[in-house]
Amino acid sequence: MLKENERLDDLQKSNLFIIQDTSKFCFGMDAVLLSGFAKANSKDKVIDLGTGNGIIPLLLSAKTNATKIVGLEIQSEVASLAKRNVDLNELENKIEIVEGNIKDAASIFGKGSFQVVTSNPPYMVGTHGIKSEDEPRMIARHELLCSLEDVISSASKLLVPQGHFYMVHRPFRLAEIIAKMKMYNLEPKRMRLVYPFIDKEPNMLLIEGVKGGNERITIEKPLIVYKDKDVYTDEIYEIYGY
Amino acid sequence: MLKENERLDDLQKSNLFIIQDTSKFCFGMDAVLLSGFAKANSKDKVIDLGTGNGIIPLLLSAKTNATKIVGLEIQSEVASLAKRNVDLNELENKIEIVEGNIKDAASIFGKGSFQVVTSNPPYMVGTHGIKSEDEPRMIARHELLCSLEDVISSASKLLVPQGHFYMVHRPFRLAEIIAKMKMYNLEPKRMRLVYPFIDKEPNMLLIEGVKGGNERITIEKPLIVYKDKDVYTDEIYEIYGY
Repeated sequence: MLKENERLDDLQKSNLFIIQDTSKFCFGMDAVLLSGFAKANSKDKVIDLGTGNGIIPLLLSAKTNATKIVGLEIQSEVASLAKRNVDLNELENKIEIVEGNIKDAASIFGKGSFQVVTSNPPYMVGTHGIKSEDEPRMIARHELLCSLEDVISSASKLLVPQGHFYMVHRPFRLAEIIAKMKMYNLEPKRMRLVYPFIDKEPNMLLIEGVKGGNERITIEKPLIVYKDKDVYTDEIYEIYGY
Repeated sequence: MLKENERLDDLQKSNLFIIQDTSKFCFGMDAVLLSGFAKANSKDKVIDLGTGNGIIPLLLSAKTNATKIVGLEIQSEVASLAKRNVDLNELENKIEIVEGNIKDAASIFGKGSFQVVTSNPPYMVGTHGIKSEDEPRMIARHELLCSLEDVISSASKLLVPQGHFYMVHRPFRLAEIIAKMKMYNLEPKRMRLVYPFIDKEPNMLLIEGVKGGNERITIEKPLIVYKDKDVYTDEIYEIYGY
């Protein structure tokens, strides 16, 4: 079942398993937190933009009642892995993996065809951060194939009026995120900052926008990751589903 | 020295005292936190927009090395009280209180005439929140005489290029604050959320903008107010200067 550089991980949730290619990109806490932050009900069609190995659709299938979840991935090999993960978990009826470019999403699926859009996009612009040697990781981490604006603009087109957009990103880009969301009519309505420790700067930000929503945002209580060195807080254990 | 409804408070900092009119508006923790968040050095001319009884100029005179601090206040009686507070503390050489409208500030003082602008503006729009019976409190709390946009637009005009804007506001208006700051070329560069307790939503937000700054914001560690019911955290004691 496993190819070179691959490993099988237990998601500790609804008997889900995931194959990850350790030479490419393995999911991190950001994907898990986003799947806990996003909401979807049984009538919602959901799309995850830049789905990678399919981690977010897999987790959303367990954590929400959404009956249809699409994962869009531009890299052919990565999309294949995501499809194998859907098969492995026998979720073919619920999750569909599509190979394609985020910029083309509205023409692939049609405008206003989803109630919910999620995304854990590349965080880094230009030469920020350390670049990985290999291309798949770079594409996942840096805005080489799609920019923040591409993700937001595409999400806006894909959503129905009052549809919901959920994204995880880095706090240093907050001002740009909010400005771009407003520019594309995805009003920021809810935000949560993830602080590794109670006395440290946040290193992740979870944000929800509503297409055509009115101008008022709720900032939620802080999400603290560690209560002590190597000891997660209760909330993190809860989100992980242990 | 005290008129009807007035009381004298010890600011517990550099022997400063303040007269407050309890029938109008008494300063809160927001003004104290803003004075701790703002920075100014000895070459900086500072202006506080909507200074009320002068609390922010008084605190800044003790907490920074600024040698010239202007407080602008539209309400005649409130501006008189601010002047009395300057006299009471013998700070006439450092602090000047001017009666005037924030919207006219750039024509009163001239464009690009300050290195630092601070403001603790009214937080509430329209019918949000509970309105006070009396006008001075309503003017301090609701956007009756000036809007968020007036404050930001005026701050931008008053500042030199690369000048700093410091504001305290409510988190529910974050998206609007960031959008308006960017619209008036005050790039959000630093932000801190004030959480009353570690497991509660933030109720204040401190933000710094730089005129013409580049697009990257630092979100600081959370500022937690209480570590236990009625017990301040060490950082709050430190900011208050006890």
